[in-house]
Amino acid sequence: MIKAGIVGATGYAGGELVRILLAHKEVKIEWLYSKSYEGQVYSDIYKNMYTMADIKLVAGDLAKLSESVDVIFTATPQGYLASVINEEVLNNAKVIDLSADFRIKDVNTYEKWYGIKHQSPEFIKEAVYGLCEKNRGDIKGARLIANPGCYPTCSFLSIYPAAAEHIIDMSTVIIDAKSGTSGAGRGAKTANLFCEVNENMKAYGLPNHRHTPEIEEQLSYASGESVLLNFSPHLVPMNRGILVTAYATLRKKPDNTSYSEDEIRSIYEKYYKDEKFVRVLPKGVCPETRWVEGSNFTDVNILVDERTGRLIMMGALDNIVKGAAGQAVQNMNIMFGLKEEEGLEMPPVFP
Amino acid sequence: MIKAGIVGATGYAGGELVRILLAHKEVKIEWLYSKSYEGQVYSDIYKNMYTMADIKLVAGDLAKLSESVDVIFTATPQGYLASVINEEVLNNAKVIDLSADFRIKDVNTYEKWYGIKHQSPEFIKEAVYGLCEKNRGDIKGARLIANPGCYPTCSFLSIYPAAAEHIIDMSTVIIDAKSGTSGAGRGAKTANLFCEVNENMKAYGLPNHRHTPEIEEQLSYASGESVLLNFSPHLVPMNRGILVTAYATLRKKPDNTSYSEDEIRSIYEKYYKDEKFVRVLPKGVCPETRWVEGSNFTDVNILVDERTGRLIMMGALDNIVKGAAGQAVQNMNIMFGLKEEEGLEMPPVFP
Amino acid sequence: MIKAGIVGATGYAGGELVRILLAHKEVKIEWLYSKSYEGQVYSDIYKNMYTMADIKLVAGDLAKLSESVDVIFTATPQGYLASVINEEVLNNAKVIDLSADFRIKDVNTYEKWYGIKHQSPEFIKEAVYGLCEKNRGDIKGARLIANPGCYPTCSFLSIYPAAAEHIIDMSTVIIDAKSGTSGAGRGAKTANLFCEVNENMKAYGLPNHRHTPEIEEQLSYASGESVLLNFSPHLVPMNRGILVTAYATLRKKPDNTSYSEDEIRSIYEKYYKDEKFVRVLPKGVCPETRWVEGSNFTDVNILVDERTGRLIMMGALDNIVKGAAGQAVQNMNIMFGLKEEEGLEMPPVFP
Amino acid sequence: MIKAGIVGATGYAGGELVRILLAHKEVKIEWLYSKSYEGQVYSDIYKNMYTMADIKLVAGDLAKLSESVDVIFTATPQGYLASVINEEVLNNAKVIDLSADFRIKDVNTYEKWYGIKHQSPEFIKEAVYGLCEKNRGDIKGARLIANPGCYPTCSFLSIYPAAAEHIIDMSTVIIDAKSGTSGAGRGAKTANLFCEVNENMKAYGLPNHRHTPEIEEQLSYASGESVLLNFSPHLVPMNRGILVTAYATLRKKPDNTSYSEDEIRSIYEKYYKDEKFVRVLPKGVCPETRWVEGSNFTDVNILVDERTGRLIMMGALDNIVKGAAGQAVQNMNIMFGLKEEEGLEMPPVFP
Repeated sequence: MIKAGIVGATGYAGGELVRILLAHKEVKIEWLYSKSYEGQVYSDIYKNMYTMADIKLVAGDLAKLSESVDVIFTATPQGYLASVINEEVLNNAKVIDLSADFRIKDVNTYEKWYGIKHQSPEFIKEAVYGLCEKNRGDIKGARLIANPGCYPTCSFLSIYPAAAEHIIDMSTVIIDAKSGTSGAGRGAKTANLFCEVNENMKAYGLPNHRHTPEIEEQLSYASGESVLLNFSPHLVPMNRGILVTAYATLRKKPDNTSYSEDEIRSIYEKYYKDEKFVRVLPKGVCPETRWVEGSNFTDVNILVDERTGRLIMMGALDNIVKGAAGQAVQNMNIMFGLKEEEGLEMPPVFP
Repeated sequence: MIKAGIVGATGYAGGELVRILLAHKEVKIEWLYSKSYEGQVYSDIYKNMYTMADIKLVAGDLAKLSESVDVIFTATPQGYLASVINEEVLNNAKVIDLSADFRIKDVNTYEKWYGIKHQSPEFIKEAVYGLCEKNRGDIKGARLIANPGCYPTCSFLSIYPAAAEHIIDMSTVIIDAKSGTSGAGRGAKTANLFCEVNENMKAYGLPNHRHTPEIEEQLSYASGESVLLNFSPHLVPMNRGILVTAYATLRKKPDNTSYSEDEIRSIYEKYYKDEKFVRVLPKGVCPETRWVEGSNFTDVNILVDERTGRLIMMGALDNIVKGAAGQAVQNMNIMFGLKEEEGLEMPPVFP
Repeated sequence: MIKAGIVGATGYAGGELVRILLAHKEVKIEWLYSKSYEGQVYSDIYKNMYTMADIKLVAGDLAKLSESVDVIFTATPQGYLASVINEEVLNNAKVIDLSADFRIKDVNTYEKWYGIKHQSPEFIKEAVYGLCEKNRGDIKGARLIANPGCYPTCSFLSIYPAAAEHIIDMSTVIIDAKSGTSGAGRGAKTANLFCEVNENMKAYGLPNHRHTPEIEEQLSYASGESVLLNFSPHLVPMNRGILVTAYATLRKKPDNTSYSEDEIRSIYEKYYKDEKFVRVLPKGVCPETRWVEGSNFTDVNILVDERTGRLIMMGALDNIVKGAAGQAVQNMNIMFGLKEEEGLEMPPVFP
Repeated sequence: MIKAGIVGATGYAGGELVRILLAHKEVKIEWLYSKSYEGQVYSDIYKNMYTMADIKLVAGDLAKLSESVDVIFTATPQGYLASVINEEVLNNAKVIDLSADFRIKDVNTYEKWYGIKHQSPEFIKEAVYGLCEKNRGDIKGARLIANPGCYPTCSFLSIYPAAAEHIIDMSTVIIDAKSGTSGAGRGAKTANLFCEVNENMKAYGLPNHRHTPEIEEQLSYASGESVLLNFSPHLVPMNRGILVTAYATLRKKPDNTSYSEDEIRSIYEKYYKDEKFVRVLPKGVCPETRWVEGSNFTDVNILVDERTGRLIMMGALDNIVKGAAGQAVQNMNIMFGLKEEEGLEMPPVFP
């Protein structure tokens, strides 16, 4: 049994890690860490876990806690892991970080977009960006995983084949994304009260949301070009789910003819044919968040608009499963040589 | 492997049976039956099941279909099963009926409250009311299970110990229940449109909702008295969940002193101490539907109001899991000698 | 023009006062008071009011501010008005208090249920309980109005005729109430975050919610008996609306025969026939919150359950209109001799 | 008093017309027309209108009904008005059509995108596109108004100044729009059931939604160029509200320098400075649907993304007020020489 510790267990992503790992046959939760709730019983806070996780929350020195586990998940605010990570921790346990601390390779970019000083830049290079479908090979041997953001995962998987195959003009990419409210976290803010969110839609963070450079970096690797794009997130009154609608101008094929929708769909199907968690939907079917809720799936599809010459790339995932805890467990499975889908085969919950 | 067939697979309870059985290690879905969608692929309708249940829906003669399976679940409108059941079917397969056809022992009561003629009254006596926590023994040997209604399950489990131990005056029982909208089914009715249900609460079916005689009958068995009560269901703008708040006047103890809250809580804890799926919550904690969503749990608790001398009995469950598909699978597990919680250990999903 | 000041203008009830008074032909808002947002522009906080109420928020000494207005609305936490009210304020302006400070005549009861010391008990006697349909006469000449609570208004109007006409046994009254989330206020609490409230139902404050003694006191006046009852509020995932389902055992008529539903409905219709804001619904139609949303209406109806001998009394209102700001303006209209429905004739908004 | 008739009074837009006109001082509703509910009382269907609009619904020959009114609103499915309009109707009453029948000047375009044959192409030329802020002059003298669609109104008002001032490259315009569910109408379709819409987001109608040519036509007029664009609507689980996020590449200024955000904001402010119902929000404030709900406002704002050289244009409105019934009444006010905001000054309802 793999022994796991979760830091930030009382946030929504942390709670989802508990939900997934409780049903994971090869993992035992060794400790749950929460500074704010130290000493309280986990199921007093997340009462869904009553009788399932009646565990006392711990806090304290991570290096010491790392001695008792094989893997640590950090579902924590930006800056936390960078402030406590060290060789000792990494020698004791593999670390999967759900924050942004190690996602961006250029520390200046990180510090500029996040507005904080990086406390451990020396580990950035080593960290592997844990987008499983792309970096499976590197993940296998990693000590430190930068688990991708929810928006970047959905955006990347929606655009990846088109970018990698040079089907689209990367300078024209616009990503319009919509998210449920669990992505805003469990902090007690007026803006996230029920009556403020319910019956409302809004854009936020435009035009400089922090996930922008993460998406740009990954699409740059995929396309081999330096990518600048617009990323516009919106908040929608629902708990879970991210929906991405991305636009880009189609390039011509090498023979100077136009790509057809079927050709591009074939490319998407080829890219994802062995991927258990990416479903290329049937022709004409748009992704909807309800069809992936509670599961580790990302559903994607594309449409060609011949009138305007643009490709519309669409994706949907559950922001706290494939967009956070689920992908983190998928990374863990790869790192420990388990079946990649172990503990992640729960079907989507509908309605 | 147990081979299962599901009739009514495209309703919400049928869909939940598919979700649960896909993750059940001892069961294989042999066929999915839908008259309205015959010939279509299941995952074209329930797109969450894409790649997981790409099965062509069948229809036709149930007796013939029963030859290929060990168990049939009927998640169908009232009257369906009564119109097709016969010895042949029951000899071929065990039948677990999620409709009300075989729940009420007195056929006249059934016909009066449901307003339809019962087509197979000869099987009523044999049918076992599948409230697992109460009738486990009889379920084991049954061929035909009348799976309890969602409201009756929640109401019964909330009141059962108080009724059985004669703690309350059964002539004073009032059940005020609230349900999410999946209980209304998937039929295309104006009253169930998003804009009609959202931002609205209403009572419905008062004072003669069809679940009333079912609850009365079961509480009569439990208390040994003939019970008449008020049952008032309400519709609430959410997908899943039933919440019951029930009221009754406390009796005195045999020694003519009053019951304390702690004494009654002890009785509840004793009744449910071996029950995996009934959680008696800690003192003072009221059940909430979010803590059971997606799971087979029923959370219960009680409060004593010393000012008015009443007992408040509360319960929460997920209407399409413990209130329908989950309890049906729990019944199947008991009938086939499997571990009772097999396939039902998924933790509640929050948020 | 009546000059009005609003203390607590940035809460939900305060915001609703602004909405209503902006459209009121006889009123001019003179100042908006908020300690937390002093100096900010109102429409920066409530952006719906941009271009309509671009007013700088004030704070400070209420006695001084009272000099410039004819009426003050206090939509403030319990204890505030009691801590600042004095003869000077009341000589300068009429005061309509949306908090509970002056609703309960017995100061000991207030202090016990609210857990705070009352700072101005000398004004309790003078205060008039502003349930317009009941106390219109006294309201006319009052200086200080205790504007009723949202739950008490809905409960009282649902039960009043039955209580006053001795149709029901007052010792059997049980009020099961459900509310939207705006009643919980705009404070930044984790429990009121979107993801905590959405897709959830729960009871809260049982069995001793603070509105209990207020309802009991008013029903005692109405029935001429000392009333103890159960009042059970529940939280429902929607913005606005309160739904009351109340139960009581029917008494016999003086001639020892039973009341029929039609007889009781006639009594309700008689009680409310001149009331513009109480609608007795047609026979068999249950109140629903969507039909009153945004308006000052309370919809009521009753059902007789002959099987159990109980009367079911139902009511629905918008908790921040008739349950708070609307009734406050109705009180103001009465106090200033205006048409009672002035500014309150906006039709309910649906959907 | 202007006498008004409403055809399609039982749809959501029709219901909103009733709500607005009931509070309009210069209008009397003469008849409400509904084929499906003929003979029933309006407030039996829209129970919010109980005591306010207890009117029997009529149906029959429109020409005959037109004799008794000054203005007819048709809130009807596509094709209805075109099938019944004639000189007689137009001589009797002014007609404001909320359907798409007369919005598109090129009948071939209409027939291609709507898939139906236009029954009265001879009236297309005469019809005035009732976008009040743009066509006020022509509206004044019109007999027949094509009331704009909800998406087109929000899209146009968001983009109009940028298009008219040649600030953006019109070949790069992408409109990503999100709508609440009332836009889908009141028809009983499975896809619009509460449990299908709640907790879900989806794109629909891509890439050829019927509002596309309407938006293109109006932006072509505004910019003086032939415009082809992408318009992508999405469905969001809420009742009311449309949010538009539009993207386009900035042009250079005539002096070959770049536009600043402040310059473009000044242009927007200039365009809308006399418009009561278009609010250009303060710098950096993104439109949110909650701030316009229930009102006739459209809130707009823009952002410049210097990194990508794009302009982001944003707008929010209530789809059944400014997007339908409110704009229809605004058109009526203009046509009859009333104050343009008469009956439309209700503040937005929040929460």
